[in-house]
Amino acid sequence: MTKKRPAILVVNDDGITAPGIKVLIEEMQKIGDVTVVAPEGPQSGTGHAITIGKPLRIDRIYIYPEVEMYKCSGTPVDCVKLAVNKVFKGRKPDICVSGINHGLNNSINVLYSGTMSAAVEGAIEDIPSIGFSYDDLEYDADFTRCRPYVSAITKQVLANKLQKGTLLNVNFPKGHIKGIKICRQADAKWAEEFDERTDPSNRSYYWLTGVFQLRDRGEDTDVWALHNEYASIVPVQFDMTAHHAIPELNSWDFEV
Amino acid sequence: MTKKRPAILVVNDDGITAPGIKVLIEEMQKIGDVTVVAPEGPQSGTGHAITIGKPLRIDRIYIYPEVEMYKCSGTPVDCVKLAVNKVFKGRKPDICVSGINHGLNNSINVLYSGTMSAAVEGAIEDIPSIGFSYDDLEYDADFTRCRPYVSAITKQVLANKLQKGTLLNVNFPKGHIKGIKICRQADAKWAEEFDERTDPSNRSYYWLTGVFQLRDRGEDTDVWALHNEYASIVPVQFDMTAHHAIPELNSWDFEV
Repeated sequence: MTKKRPAILVVNDDGITAPGIKVLIEEMQKIGDVTVVAPEGPQSGTGHAITIGKPLRIDRIYIYPEVEMYKCSGTPVDCVKLAVNKVFKGRKPDICVSGINHGLNNSINVLYSGTMSAAVEGAIEDIPSIGFSYDDLEYDADFTRCRPYVSAITKQVLANKLQKGTLLNVNFPKGHIKGIKICRQADAKWAEEFDERTDPSNRSYYWLTGVFQLRDRGEDTDVWALHNEYASIVPVQFDMTAHHAIPELNSWDFEV
Repeated sequence: MTKKRPAILVVNDDGITAPGIKVLIEEMQKIGDVTVVAPEGPQSGTGHAITIGKPLRIDRIYIYPEVEMYKCSGTPVDCVKLAVNKVFKGRKPDICVSGINHGLNNSINVLYSGTMSAAVEGAIEDIPSIGFSYDDLEYDADFTRCRPYVSAITKQVLANKLQKGTLLNVNFPKGHIKGIKICRQADAKWAEEFDERTDPSNRSYYWLTGVFQLRDRGEDTDVWALHNEYASIVPVQFDMTAHHAIPELNSWDFEV
């Protein structure tokens, strides 16, 4: 009796034609049966957005003919919802993998990232989920060094599962990879520097740009690991309750 | 010597003309000096999205002439970033309040909600931040019962501050409010039911819709509190690390 191959849902936020998702599809084809549902265009920075004010489209496409692929007009989170409800229809993928993102999603970027939000949505659906990101924003980024790690991490998640309510945020450094470090999310923020310009009608507009500000000297963070040439894995949860803050709030006097 | 009035940043996701933000502005004017930076149109469900592929506009408007108000072409998170960097310019608001949202943002909705993401962004900027939401989706929702609670909670946050890296998610039940409960985020998800239709060109499209599925019988959750006629306050953190999952992951063998 042959063991059933796992059903793998692949999603991303750079769009279905991005090189990063092609690499992820290729690695997943070695492990299981792949279904892709991904945005038709770039959706970087969409975070956990969903489409509620306008209708959604989803269409079968054939750019990699041997794979079942659908492009979606919505966000990465919409893709996961449509995949679960309209493509898998009651069956459930054994794993959901998102990426490989062109650019890091370490630290606070877990909140802004469509790649990670797709994986979070997978976890909300009780599907073991992983987001993969690589420290190269370029279209022709070379993902070669990531491949064996993507494969090894996916196999470990399939073998061990993940604790309920958790998923993995995996980031790869550019260049040599020394190994893997399990990390916590570094405390950091973006210091915005809006680039102000004037349009032909003499009205101002702004481009959002910024500098990553690390506020965390810990050596157990994803930022530290990546800086020291390790791939970082942060276990992520979608319970955002600050449980440690509850006792103090219970001491406050809300006079109404 | 008179005490300096606090500088209050008001934002929302229903758009700057929504009745909910008008109520919030009115309550905040009793407490401090109000600056509003809010989306020009509805941005519900945008989560923590930011605008990176296109430019942003921000314009002074005068719909409530006694208040410094700006409408922004971007998301709620963009509004907070522009407020901090272009409106306050180096000064910092003493508090950031978001809402009042037309509709609840309890439980898992903290992830999808633009209202809450704006408050999260305020907290990332080290500004004490609160998101307010009310259990009525209607445009002409009556926020009267929320007003004294909005005021009391804001005053407590100004007096006591909040622990670093935390903010408050406040939700009000419809109807009578018995009091306030400090809660954790209930475990729940949306069971999607995509409404499939056919356009005049005979192509399918979908409207995202769904049913809220509570998976949590706890009596310490926001869902429980609201169901029992209490306003719920959940302390929220933007560190999404599942710290409890780190030891197990450190036992895994990633063979590369």
